[in-house]
Amino acid sequence: MSGSDVSGSALIGIDWGSTNLRAYRFDGSGVVVATRESAQGIVNIRDRGFEAALLALCADWIDSTPNTVILMSGMIGSRQGWIEAPYAPCPASSGDVARQLTRIDTSVAPAWIVPGISVVAENGVYDVMRGEETQIFGAIDSAASAFVIAPGTHSKWIDIENRGIRNFRTFMTGELYSLLRSHSLLGRLMIDAPHDADAFSRGVRIGLEGDLTGHLFGVRTEGLFARIAPAALASYLSGLLIGAEIHSATQGPSRWVELQKASTLRIIGTAAISGSYRNALAQAGMTNVELVDAHHATARGLWNIATQSTQLREPK
Amino acid sequence: MSGSDVSGSALIGIDWGSTNLRAYRFDGSGVVVATRESAQGIVNIRDRGFEAALLALCADWIDSTPNTVILMSGMIGSRQGWIEAPYAPCPASSGDVARQLTRIDTSVAPAWIVPGISVVAENGVYDVMRGEETQIFGAIDSAASAFVIAPGTHSKWIDIENRGIRNFRTFMTGELYSLLRSHSLLGRLMIDAPHDADAFSRGVRIGLEGDLTGHLFGVRTEGLFARIAPAALASYLSGLLIGAEIHSATQGPSRWVELQKASTLRIIGTAAISGSYRNALAQAGMTNVELVDAHHATARGLWNIATQSTQLREPK
Repeated sequence: MSGSDVSGSALIGIDWGSTNLRAYRFDGSGVVVATRESAQGIVNIRDRGFEAALLALCADWIDSTPNTVILMSGMIGSRQGWIEAPYAPCPASSGDVARQLTRIDTSVAPAWIVPGISVVAENGVYDVMRGEETQIFGAIDSAASAFVIAPGTHSKWIDIENRGIRNFRTFMTGELYSLLRSHSLLGRLMIDAPHDADAFSRGVRIGLEGDLTGHLFGVRTEGLFARIAPAALASYLSGLLIGAEIHSATQGPSRWVELQKASTLRIIGTAAISGSYRNALAQAGMTNVELVDAHHATARGLWNIATQSTQLREPK
Repeated sequence: MSGSDVSGSALIGIDWGSTNLRAYRFDGSGVVVATRESAQGIVNIRDRGFEAALLALCADWIDSTPNTVILMSGMIGSRQGWIEAPYAPCPASSGDVARQLTRIDTSVAPAWIVPGISVVAENGVYDVMRGEETQIFGAIDSAASAFVIAPGTHSKWIDIENRGIRNFRTFMTGELYSLLRSHSLLGRLMIDAPHDADAFSRGVRIGLEGDLTGHLFGVRTEGLFARIAPAALASYLSGLLIGAEIHSATQGPSRWVELQKASTLRIIGTAAISGSYRNALAQAGMTNVELVDAHHATARGLWNIATQSTQLREPK
């Protein structure tokens, strides 16, 4: 399906993650003309009510447009989702991904799921992403070679070559933060408060030393000795974890060291988290950072994949 | 108070941690003649009922012996405990600690609390221990110089010089394990099962690479790709965390690198956890490891501190 083919039908792009469901309605030239969102992420769906959740969000879009095609990315393609969409191995371009869509039968319109991406690290352990590949293909459009960071619950650092995902690594930064904030001894000392830039920066400095398990206990002692106020401790922890992530990503094997000299690093995320990463990267000496809005990248990625897919035209 | 002075009165040693309370009754020569235990750790004590919990465990010991003296160590001396016993700074020997006991008024007998120990790391962040110092002074008796590991919720690596604690570091290994096992996405893939030595060893190998946040997600993928069985995943995680701890402790600044060549490393702990650490240390090339029973070390440490203290003789 070429760009003009997409205009022949109508594309609805779906970003369906663990906790949120977001729909983009495209016009024939790829412009997003409407966006809708609900809290029906896959963990909130009961009794496999995926189709009902989708229709609750955008049945009117489907009904009002002949030949609607639906393209979905994210955890909806995981084992806990609607149907498991097998991973495409690295290296993988948007064209590779577009050839490996998984079809779902719905009662209303043809629907497809973008595969996640897998890679085997040098130590033999697998890494995977699901959803971020679509964002990445929306964020690197014109870049043959790039480094991309997609911060979050499971932060991804992605190495782009020849417009494809060559390699990537996952860091459990966001999940560790939540666990430590909500369930650990460290969290008990903290008071909810706005982001504290000084405490965050202090955490980054320590985190950049690496050695995370050895530094986490310092969150407790900095609190115990009243060197960091309870209202600033969560920002210190956040800085510590992001600093440790940057240390790991840049000290690790293979091409990751090139991050240090990469001309531009793109961060895909919301303004708040991307800003924190930009500040932390600057402390590590990486200042050429470009922020890409996550929703915008997802929409563009879904459109890019759709326009390269011949599968979307297959008869039902 | 010399050894013979202790025999003049009677010593009850108390190891009072967050979740357990353990009492040792000594004869006049330091032999433990009776041990009792309850679940009245400080987090389980309501309305500051510390004295009641102590008496419930060993009132009869106190009543039946004239001039009983009680010496306590552990979290009972923390801010959440009976009374806060200020930290003694490093370097600290058992003699230093014996001069800085904190007195508590009870209705039955003089009682004292052993101070915790604090140190400031090269990056300016404090580290603290409370309870382990007493175990250490019971475990290093004749060693002028040694390295000691006290694994646990907050694992300690201790550098001993001139029979005193010169420096130490805390690793949140045990707490991270519990958090990840009970509350994380990783834990959801796990099935409770006996220790799996192969999966543990595989985790240690990866953990020894350092870079913990970058390896944790592998627990998920090794499960997803069915390379490690759900019943073995918890052992893999445990190995990963202990491997990362060993990496951090031995790659860090200052004297810690000497651990690699230390003639003997002592591990204070229960048989199960000490055995896991011994196996992991062997994978890291450290084979001269001696296991010390934690309860035995605590009892000996309490006795050692008591026999060096002049405070215990002070009139009430």
